[in-house]
Parts: sequence; C-alpha cells; structure tokens
Amino acid sequence: MKLKMMYSFLKADIDLIEKELEAAIESQSPLLQEASLQLIHAGGKRIRPVFVLLAAKFGDYDIHKIKNVAVALELIHMASLVHDDVIDDAEMRRGKPTVKSQWDNRIAMYTGDYMFARALEYMTVIENPQAHKILSDTMVEVCVGEIQQIKDKYHYGQNLRDYLRRIKRKTAILIAASCQLGALASGAKENIHKALYQFGYNVGMSFQITDDILDFTATSEVLGKPAGSDLLQGNITLPVLYGMENKEVHERVMKVHEGTKEEAMTEVIQAIKASNAIEQSHELSQRYLQKALSNLDELPNGRTKKTLRDIALYIGRRKF
Amino acid sequence: MKLKMMYSFLKADIDLIEKELEAAIESQSPLLQEASLQLIHAGGKRIRPVFVLLAAKFGDYDIHKIKNVAVALELIHMASLVHDDVIDDAEMRRGKPTVKSQWDNRIAMYTGDYMFARALEYMTVIENPQAHKILSDTMVEVCVGEIQQIKDKYHYGQNLRDYLRRIKRKTAILIAASCQLGALASGAKENIHKALYQFGYNVGMSFQITDDILDFTATSEVLGKPAGSDLLQGNITLPVLYGMENKEVHERVMKVHEGTKEEAMTEVIQAIKASNAIEQSHELSQRYLQKALSNLDELPNGRTKKTLRDIALYIGRRKF
Repeated sequence: MKLKMMYSFLKADIDLIEKELEAAIESQSPLLQEASLQLIHAGGKRIRPVFVLLAAKFGDYDIHKIKNVAVALELIHMASLVHDDVIDDAEMRRGKPTVKSQWDNRIAMYTGDYMFARALEYMTVIENPQAHKILSDTMVEVCVGEIQQIKDKYHYGQNLRDYLRRIKRKTAILIAASCQLGALASGAKENIHKALYQFGYNVGMSFQITDDILDFTATSEVLGKPAGSDLLQGNITLPVLYGMENKEVHERVMKVHEGTKEEAMTEVIQAIKASNAIEQSHELSQRYLQKALSNLDELPNGRTKKTLRDIALYIGRRKF
Repeated sequence: MKLKMMYSFLKADIDLIEKELEAAIESQSPLLQEASLQLIHAGGKRIRPVFVLLAAKFGDYDIHKIKNVAVALELIHMASLVHDDVIDDAEMRRGKPTVKSQWDNRIAMYTGDYMFARALEYMTVIENPQAHKILSDTMVEVCVGEIQQIKDKYHYGQNLRDYLRRIKRKTAILIAASCQLGALASGAKENIHKALYQFGYNVGMSFQITDDILDFTATSEVLGKPAGSDLLQGNITLPVLYGMENKEVHERVMKVHEGTKEEAMTEVIQAIKASNAIEQSHELSQRYLQKALSNLDELPNGRTKKTLRDIALYIGRRKF
C-alpha cells in the first residue's frame, strides 16, 4: 500500500495544509517567496504534518486549529533542510537544485531563518505554554545536533552512541515533537501525548537509519543525488560504522575525503555492502520500529492507531 | 552623562541579565558555547534588555519573570548579528574577530540558529499569547529586511523610502518590540505598551541613522572596523543617498565596488562629507528623536519616563 493511501481519510485536511504552506511563505520579498516556494514544491512526504494530524485525533480534533501546528512543524523541517544544504554544500535535493545552489549560501541562510520565523507565527495560535516549551527545546536540540554533525565529520573514531545521539537530534526529536504536539495542542491527556512522543522518537530513529542505509543501497535516480553522498561529505553513518568493524573496509573508508573520485567511492560502497553492515543496520532499524509499535499499546484502539501502525511498518520496509 | 549612569538604579538587574546571558548559551557542544560566548563577551550596549526592564516598570515589575524577555531579545539581536556577519563577509565586529572569521560561515549560521532557539526557550516563560505573536511577527519582518538588504546592495536607484523601510526592519522594530514586550509581559495597559512600541520604533530609526552617519564620520579605531565599510559592501545608507543628490558625488559613489582600494574609498568618503549629506542625515535622525520624545507624553511621569528620555537624548548625540 502506498503511504498516501494509508491516511486517505485525511486527504482533505492534508490538501488544506498544502495550501496553507504555500500561503505561509507569501512574502513582500519576491526572492524570498521564490526560494521558499521551490522548497515546498520539491515535495517530500509531509510526514510531520501527517503525524500532527493523526496525533490530534486523540484529542479534540479541530483542523482549523491543528493545521497551524502541522504547518509550523513542516516549515521548521524545511528550514533545517535549507540550512543543512549550506553545511553539506549540497547542489541537489530530491532531484532538484538546492536553494544554495540556485541562489547562494546567504540567501539559503535567510530563507531558512524566514521559514523558522514563519513557523513561530503559526504556532502562536496555540495557547498552551507547554507546547511552546517542547517546540523551543526541540529546536535547541536540533541546532546542537547540527553543530555536532559538523564536528563529527571525517571523525572516524566515533562510536555507535555518537551516531545515535546525532540522528536523534537530526531527525527523531522533530518527529517525536510532531506526534506529541499534535496530541497536546488538541487537549489529549498526558499519558497519550507522552506515548506519542516515544512512538515518534522510535519511528524517527528507524526512519533515519533506513535513510542512511538507502544512501548506500538505492540508485542515484531514486535518491536524486549520487549514492554514497553521506560518506563523501564525511558523514559517518551506521552502515559505515558497522562496516568499519572489518579492518579492510576500515582502511578503505579512512581514505575517503572531499575530493574522492566516483570510481574509488564505488569501491568503498561495494566493500560496505559486501560486509555485514547493511544487514546489521537494518536490524537496528527494525528494533526501533518494534519499540515504536509497542509504544502504541498505550493508545486507544481505532482507525488512528491502526494508521500510525501502518505508517511505522511502511517506514520499516520503504525502498526510497 | 554616560549611558550606564542613566539607569544605575537598574544595575543589579542588568548584572543579573549579564549572568543569565552566559548561562543561556551553556551547551553540551563546547564549540557552540565558545562561539556564542565570544559574541556575548564582545559587549554591546545591551540597549534592548535595558528597554525591556524600563518598559516593565510601567507594569507589575518582577525581575525573575521579565529577565526572560530581556535575555530573549538580546539573544535574538546577537543571533541576527552573527547571521549578518556571514552576509557582509565581515572579519571584525566591535574590534574583535567575528564568529564567521574565527570559525567559518557554517558555524556562524548554526550559532545564530542556536541563539534564536535559546531565545524562544526563554520566552516560553511568558504566557501571554499576544507577546509571542509580536515577537514572531517581528522576527519575520527582520528576516524579510535581511533578504531585502542583500537585494538592495549596490542598487543605486533606490530611494529614501527603500532605505527607511530597510532600517525599520533591520533595527527599529526589534527595539520597538523590546519596549512593547517589556510592558506587555509585566501587564501594563494597552495604551502604555503601544506608546512604548512607538517610542522604541522612533528611537531605533534615529539610532540606526546615527550608526550610518558614524560609519562615515568616526575613525576606524572607534568603529572597530574601517570607516566607509557600509558603502564598500554595497550598503546604500542615508548619507550616501543624500550625497548622491550631488551629481559629482553620485558619479564617485557609482564607481565603488567590492574591491575598491582604500585610497579611492577615502576620496568617496571625503566627497560625501564635503556635501550636505551628513547634516541632512543628522536632521532626519533628530526628527525621529523628537517623535520618540513626544511618544513619552502618553506615559505617567516619574524616574522611568525620565530615564527613557535621557537614553533617547543620549542616542541622539552619541559619537560612537
């Protein structure tokens, strides 16, 4: 089943959020609007808004209120992508030129700032102080994670814990916050929004590990960027860490640097794939997924819970 | 009278905020902490926190609550400085190396993001939704202003209105928001916090015009950067706009580009100073100042109002 089919009962609401996202970045500055709009049209799974809406179903669901949270979280996600592209010096994202490649780093920086600020405007509709605290704490963690990612580049001495902490901050906590804030903003009880936080966290960890696996196993066409891009940029992901447990792979990986040619990269990628690294990574991803599914036990049965389960399972087996 | 003497009755509270600022940027990432700390220690007038505290005196003054607003606004100001330094490719600020020159643009970008996020955490203590709306609207305007400033660089066809709109977004609205939020967060009445917004806006406009004048009239030692830096970076400020009304000055200015040598710059600066531009700029700054003083009429008499008046007058005659 396709991802979108899983939450087809939310289609009208998701369409509304898509329109709202476009409206959100309407600006007196045509340049700012164009750069932001490109980002929105580049697509993406809108997984954060979907989680916000689903989580809100456990409370007093009001799309005209909850849409603000959904838009805010997607804007924050997109803002962090623009800033990441500056860091990674990325030319392409999802098969399209990045803001930093089409304009420049400075425009990308302020486009990100602008989307962050817009996100905050949307969030002000929610009058629950706890929601604002969760969101700002999340943003602090995301920033710390981003700096850590820069520091950890080409740092081959790092261990599994470093990696897990980094992907927690990079991906998992924003998904966790999406789930929690959807529930909290619609007045769901504490045990519900805390369980949803845990669910989002575990799904997010699994999701990012899968992403890091796909960087090695998927084709450039599917990824919209060259395979092995992460490693080429010095990002030591889980398959690399597991791969390096093999001495030969370790030596090959250590030779990768910013200017490594395609042919040499292909060999490194092959060496990692030939080791047990992909399987081990997949196993860890599955473990997080199982935890996510057990987090759902706390929630009342029904269509929403089933959908969360379907999405989690989908994420566990996605190929792109 | 020195600026600090004017609000000596706030000294203990200002010291507290200084400590709180250092605590605010304590981070698990030493790099992030070091970069942020350098920024805090680079000093600055802390004019935004001072305005927050003074404005709060018109309500129910509680330093342990209002300090959060003061810290948030100073952090936002500093975050925007780090991002500005990336845009301006600035090596020095206040006589010290910038974050982007000591580390790099990427670290500067995330240091800014981090300080923004920290600021939001501090603001969550304030439970007034209107306060959050004002702050996020302000941040959106600041971002739009920053993009506009990039677009307007070396754009000699711009007029007075373009300039005023730019400095409004660049400087005036954050000072206006500081005044308004200090009052609002301490429960002052609407006529009070609106008058304080207007006061802050007009003081901010006057302040920025003075800054733009000083870029031409002050020495490099006082500025901590070369005189005429703004123009060299393509920023068309008020003295340049007025100067260009003279055909000869106009022609000289048009020749300035990123690589213009010091000697040629000195000639352009001299030409602008020899025209009536500095006097005209000073006049407009004074006009904003007069408006600021008249905004104070709305406020109850007393030491706080007198201090706001003193600070405004100080800003009007400052030489650095």
